[in-house]
Amino acid sequence: MNEQHPQDQIEAPTSFEDVYAVNTELVRAVEAALADDLDGGVHDLLAPLRPADIADLAVVLGREDRRRLALALGDDLDVDTLIDLEGSVLADLLAVMSPHAVARAIPELDTDEAVHLLEEMDAARREQVLARVPAPDRAAVLEGLSFPEDSAGRLMQRDLIAVPAYWSVGQVIDYCRDTEELPDEFYEIFVIDPRHRPIGQVALNRLMRTRRPVLLREIMEAEATTIPVDMDQEEVAFLFQQYRLTSAPVIDNAGRLVGVITFDDAATVLEEEAEEDLMRLSGVSSETDLSDTALRTTRTRASWLLVNLGTAILASMVIALFDATIEQIVALAVLMPIVASMGGNAGTQTLTVAVRALATRELTAANALRIVGKELAVGAMNGVLFALLVGLVAAFWFDQPTLGVVIAVAMVINMVVAGLAGTLIPLGLDRAGIDPAIAATVFLTTITDVVGFFVFLGLAALFLL
Amino acid sequence: MNEQHPQDQIEAPTSFEDVYAVNTELVRAVEAALADDLDGGVHDLLAPLRPADIADLAVVLGREDRRRLALALGDDLDVDTLIDLEGSVLADLLAVMSPHAVARAIPELDTDEAVHLLEEMDAARREQVLARVPAPDRAAVLEGLSFPEDSAGRLMQRDLIAVPAYWSVGQVIDYCRDTEELPDEFYEIFVIDPRHRPIGQVALNRLMRTRRPVLLREIMEAEATTIPVDMDQEEVAFLFQQYRLTSAPVIDNAGRLVGVITFDDAATVLEEEAEEDLMRLSGVSSETDLSDTALRTTRTRASWLLVNLGTAILASMVIALFDATIEQIVALAVLMPIVASMGGNAGTQTLTVAVRALATRELTAANALRIVGKELAVGAMNGVLFALLVGLVAAFWFDQPTLGVVIAVAMVINMVVAGLAGTLIPLGLDRAGIDPAIAATVFLTTITDVVGFFVFLGLAALFLL
Repeated sequence: MNEQHPQDQIEAPTSFEDVYAVNTELVRAVEAALADDLDGGVHDLLAPLRPADIADLAVVLGREDRRRLALALGDDLDVDTLIDLEGSVLADLLAVMSPHAVARAIPELDTDEAVHLLEEMDAARREQVLARVPAPDRAAVLEGLSFPEDSAGRLMQRDLIAVPAYWSVGQVIDYCRDTEELPDEFYEIFVIDPRHRPIGQVALNRLMRTRRPVLLREIMEAEATTIPVDMDQEEVAFLFQQYRLTSAPVIDNAGRLVGVITFDDAATVLEEEAEEDLMRLSGVSSETDLSDTALRTTRTRASWLLVNLGTAILASMVIALFDATIEQIVALAVLMPIVASMGGNAGTQTLTVAVRALATRELTAANALRIVGKELAVGAMNGVLFALLVGLVAAFWFDQPTLGVVIAVAMVINMVVAGLAGTLIPLGLDRAGIDPAIAATVFLTTITDVVGFFVFLGLAALFLL
Repeated sequence: MNEQHPQDQIEAPTSFEDVYAVNTELVRAVEAALADDLDGGVHDLLAPLRPADIADLAVVLGREDRRRLALALGDDLDVDTLIDLEGSVLADLLAVMSPHAVARAIPELDTDEAVHLLEEMDAARREQVLARVPAPDRAAVLEGLSFPEDSAGRLMQRDLIAVPAYWSVGQVIDYCRDTEELPDEFYEIFVIDPRHRPIGQVALNRLMRTRRPVLLREIMEAEATTIPVDMDQEEVAFLFQQYRLTSAPVIDNAGRLVGVITFDDAATVLEEEAEEDLMRLSGVSSETDLSDTALRTTRTRASWLLVNLGTAILASMVIALFDATIEQIVALAVLMPIVASMGGNAGTQTLTVAVRALATRELTAANALRIVGKELAVGAMNGVLFALLVGLVAAFWFDQPTLGVVIAVAMVINMVVAGLAGTLIPLGLDRAGIDPAIAATVFLTTITDVVGFFVFLGLAALFLL
C-alpha cells in the first residue's frame, strides 16, 4: 500500500452518485460493448464494480444483454453477484452457467446463500449441480433445503463459533487466531452447554474490551433471543427488528444449536414482507418481478383482473335492479360513481393502515375492538363532512334539493360501512390464518360498490320517483 | 450465576409466542392492574419484559392506560423503551415525564437516539430538557439536530473508535480494554489519516482472528462505503441493503470522520420507506399512526378524500356529457363502471410495480423505455382478453351485439391507457424530483375513469343511437 501521500489517496464522496456506480451512462456503455461483442470492453467496465453492483446491472439490462453479459464474464462471474439476485434474472444467469461452475461456487457460500441458489433451479439441474459438490457441503445444503420454505432453517447459516462457558476470553481469541475454517463473517460468539444447547452469547465488542483471563460465563448475555428452526421467517424478521439483533442462534427441536441467522438476512425478509403487503393490496402477485416477460406478466396479472371483473359485474347487476329509476332520472347515473368511489377510497385508507398494523403487531386482538370503534367514528365524521359537500354540489348541479339529501345519506352510510369493512376484513382474514393483505382490496371494493350503488339508487327509487 | 444444574436453566422456545411476550392476556392483565391502581401489580407484570416489549405494550394500550402506565412506572421507565416509539405514543409518554427525567436519560443514549427523542418535542419543552443536560452531551445532540431531517447526520451516532493505520491489532485490543468511554455497541474499527479522514475499516471478527503484531493497514478494508453527512436517509438505507453493511463511516464536507451509522438504523429507515410507499399509494399520510385520535385521523384522511372527490366529480361531468345517450340506452349506465373499474385496477397493478421498482432502483432511466413498452404490451394483451369476455357478457346480457363490440373496444383502449399511465406517471414524478408514490394513484384513476367513461359513452353515442 502506498503511504507516501495519504492525503492524495482519498476522494471523499460528496453524493450518492459517488458511492453507487450503476447509472444510465454505465448501462449504455455496457450495452454498447455487448452489442459489439467486446468481451474485453465489458470486463474493463465491470472491473471497478462490486458484486452487488453487477447484480443491479444484470437487473437493469434486457434479457438478451443479460445472457450475453454472463457469457462474456464466464468464470469471472462472481457468485456473490448471484446471491443478490432472484426470480427470472437469477434464472437467466444460471441458465448460461455450467453445472460445474455453479457447483464450484457452492462451498464458498454460506449455507443460506447456497440454498437460495439451488431453490431457484428445477430438480434436474439441482441434481446435476449437487452431484458435483463435495460431500460435506452437499450434506449441509441438502439439510438446508429440507426445512420448509420461509422457515428459520432456510435463512440460517451453519458455520458459527460455539464454545463452553468455562472458556476465557483469551482462549476464544487464541481459538479464532488458530482456526482456519471460521465463518466469513460473525458478530457474536455463542456459549453452549455440554448438550450443545445455547446458554448465552457474547458480542465481539464485549470480547474486545474484556481482559484475557475473564471467563465467558461472567460476560455472556444469558437472556439472548433464541430462534426455533421451524419458526416462520416473518416472525424471525420481526424479532430482529424488535430487539435490534445482530445475529441470533437457531435451535432444533431438542434445543441444540444448529445455526445462526444474521441481521442482513432478517433485513431482506423484512423488506420482502413489506413489499408483499404492498403488492397484494394492489392485486399483484408477489411472485412477479419487473424482469418477467410481457407474456408472463400478462398471465400473473390476469387472474386478479378476472376476480375484479366478477365483482364489477356484481356491481352492475345492482345497478341493473334500478334501470327503470335511472331511465327516469339520468342524474343518478351521473352521480352514482361518486358514492362508490368515495366509499372505496375511504375503505382503502383504513384497510391499508390495518394491514400494516397487523404486520407490525400494533393491531392485535387486544386492541381490535378499540380500533374498529375508532375507524367507525372516523368513517362517520368524514362521511358527514363529505355528505354535506356532495349533497350541496348535487342539489345545485341538478337544481333538486331532495337529490342532494339522498346522495348525502347514501354517502354517510357507505363511508361508515367502508370504515367497518376496512378494519373487519383484515382482522377476519388474520383470525382465519390468512394473510390479511390477500384479497382484502377486492372484498372491500365489492362491499363499497354494492352498498354505494344499492343505497343511493334504492333511496332515489323510494324518495325521488 | 448458578451453574449446578445447567441443563435445568434452559427452557428452549418452541414457537414465536415463547420468545415474544406481548399477547392479549398480558395486555388484559396490565389493563386490569392499571384500572385497579395496582402500581405494584403493573411492576410485577412488566418486570420480565424487555424495553422494546414495554414499548409495544404502550402502543397497544389505549391513550389513558398508556399515560397511567407511564405514571405507574415513573422513574423505572427505561429510556430504551422510548427510543422504540414514535408519533403520538411517544408524545403521550413524554408528556407525563418530567423534563428532568428525560434530561437524565439523554447522556445514556446514542446521539441518534437522543436526537429522535428531542425531535418529537415542541421547542419549549426541548429547551427545558436541554437546559438540564450536561454540556458535552447537549452540544452533541444540538449538532445532531442541526442536520436536515431525514439526512445521514440525523441517523448517525458520534461515539466510534477511530485509530491510525500504523497501530497494530494488539494496540487496538489494549486500547479497547483500557478505555472507559467506548460506544455501547460497535462492529467495526475505523482507520483514519492524520487529517481525521477515514481510509479504511476493520471488522471486529477480522481483529479477532489476526495476531497482535499485525498492523491495521495490512488487514483493513480500504474500499469501504463512506456516507456524506448530508446524504438522504433513503439513499443511506439503500447502500446498507446493497452492500450488506454492518456499519458505515459518515464524513463531513471536508472528508473528516464525524460519526457512524449502524445496520439497525438503516433497517428502520428501509421499513419506514416501504411503509411510506404503501401508505401514499393508498392515500394515507405517512405522518399518521394507529394510535392517533379519531379526530386527528379524520383530519389527515380528509385531505386525500377531498382530492378524490374532485376527480370523482370530474368523472361525473364526463358522464353528464352523455346524459341524453344514457336516457335512451340505460344499459350504458349499468355497464360503464366495469370499463372504469377494470382500467383502474390494471393501472394500479402497473403503478405499484413501477413505484417499488423505482424505490429499489430496478427501474431507472436506463431501462424505462423497455419497461414502458412491456407494460403497453401487457395492457394490450389483457385488454384484448378481457374485452372479449366483457363484450360477450354485455352482448348476451342485453341481447345487443353492437353494445358488446362498443364495450370491448372501450375496454382495450382503457387498459392500454392504464398500462401507459401506470408507468409514465411514476416515472414523470420521479424525474420531476417528487416521490413517485405521492398522488400517483389519484392521477391514475382520474385518467382511467375519464378515459373509460368518455370512450365507452362516446362510442355508444356514435354507433348505438
